[in-house]
Amino acid sequence: MIKIESAQNDRVKKWRKLHERKYREKQQLFLIEGFHLIEEALKYKGIVEEIIKTEGVEIPNHWKTADIISTTTQVMKSLSETETSQEVVAVCHMSTTLIDFTKKRFLLVDGVQDPGNLGTMIRTADAAGFDAVIIGKGTVDLYNSKVIRSTQGSIFHLPIVKEDLSQAIEHLKNHQIKVIGTALENSESYNKLEKPSRFAIIVGNEGKGMNKQLLTQTDVNVSLPIYGQAESLNVAVAAGILMYYYR
Amino acid sequence: MIKIESAQNDRVKKWRKLHERKYREKQQLFLIEGFHLIEEALKYKGIVEEIIKTEGVEIPNHWKTADIISTTTQVMKSLSETETSQEVVAVCHMSTTLIDFTKKRFLLVDGVQDPGNLGTMIRTADAAGFDAVIIGKGTVDLYNSKVIRSTQGSIFHLPIVKEDLSQAIEHLKNHQIKVIGTALENSESYNKLEKPSRFAIIVGNEGKGMNKQLLTQTDVNVSLPIYGQAESLNVAVAAGILMYYYR
Repeated sequence: MIKIESAQNDRVKKWRKLHERKYREKQQLFLIEGFHLIEEALKYKGIVEEIIKTEGVEIPNHWKTADIISTTTQVMKSLSETETSQEVVAVCHMSTTLIDFTKKRFLLVDGVQDPGNLGTMIRTADAAGFDAVIIGKGTVDLYNSKVIRSTQGSIFHLPIVKEDLSQAIEHLKNHQIKVIGTALENSESYNKLEKPSRFAIIVGNEGKGMNKQLLTQTDVNVSLPIYGQAESLNVAVAAGILMYYYR
Repeated sequence: MIKIESAQNDRVKKWRKLHERKYREKQQLFLIEGFHLIEEALKYKGIVEEIIKTEGVEIPNHWKTADIISTTTQVMKSLSETETSQEVVAVCHMSTTLIDFTKKRFLLVDGVQDPGNLGTMIRTADAAGFDAVIIGKGTVDLYNSKVIRSTQGSIFHLPIVKEDLSQAIEHLKNHQIKVIGTALENSESYNKLEKPSRFAIIVGNEGKGMNKQLLTQTDVNVSLPIYGQAESLNVAVAAGILMYYYR
């Protein structure tokens, strides 16, 4: 087991850079934190590059097939992005998945800004047995630490790809998948639509909703009725209601 | 319009104390922040005690029936709990509502810890046309600033009371309201249950779920099936799916 004690060590500097999106994308690497997430990542081959732990922190024996680096509390603090750190961090490879358009259930995410919302939607898509999540350009970075934490490990459970949503919609339609947009106006109530056997649900930005151009490309646009005085639903809640309803 | 320029002013000190739960409860007052929330609060009589704004910040004319206090950027910073402050804060009275058990739809919250989850559930209960939210003892404080922000104003739209949940369940049952608990084990799938016309849904703590004693008091316990590899759903998403399904 390697020991690194200086926060100025080149590897430590390289890891710390992974807090920024541009370095993550350049190096095709990202950080995850905590026992549960690392456990989930290790279930899949080729994801975990190395595990970093504070000296003295006990790790499970089956983790020891990975490269383990032991370090100081100070170095760990500089790597951790959580308030109550478990003092274990792993460097992971971004995976490049292709979407299988012969599958049945897809979630498309257009311009969602809040990391917790994106992570929670990925977790729900996993729970609801969805086959893939497609993330459009204006959305918060998938490898943001808060997004990863909110997925609770689901980031490793189903294919998640970044793609131009306009093109993705055309692909989905060519594969006879019903594309369901969401909009407060010019839409029908979600429960008026017959449940399709193969479908894609698109959710939009927290404030502005879905891109107008994309709304013209869908097969149908639906809304969740508001029975009280709230102006709208939280996007992750709305996505959850729709995913469980149509599946 | 009164001007206060010192952060050491007694009123400023009193307002700042409202960042702590014990002072909020003692004084039966709480702070809200931002134009949208204050606008919502002003729709109801007797809620807003006073509005504090940074000097130079423009406020709508119809707000001027309330007590307005103008202050410095520094004082505002000491009051604000948001990253990007709109520099308007209001002191509000906690309202004491009674629950009308002749109504139809209730949400009970048992031990939810995350402020965003509680706030989002209140927002969803409002949207889904629920009649009241009942909050048990172990739950995060309703008047926590993050809870209030996450409600997006719904905190003012429906009765929300803190009450012993065990007693609340008995009251609900005495009023022929079907009490639906949530549990991963020893429960039936939510969509196997015939939709009741009058019902209460209880959701539990993020990690531990609902209190075991309460689970024995309910009429029925349901779960949301997990079709993928996720271990569970986020509690606010689960609550949303159930609220829209049974309503």
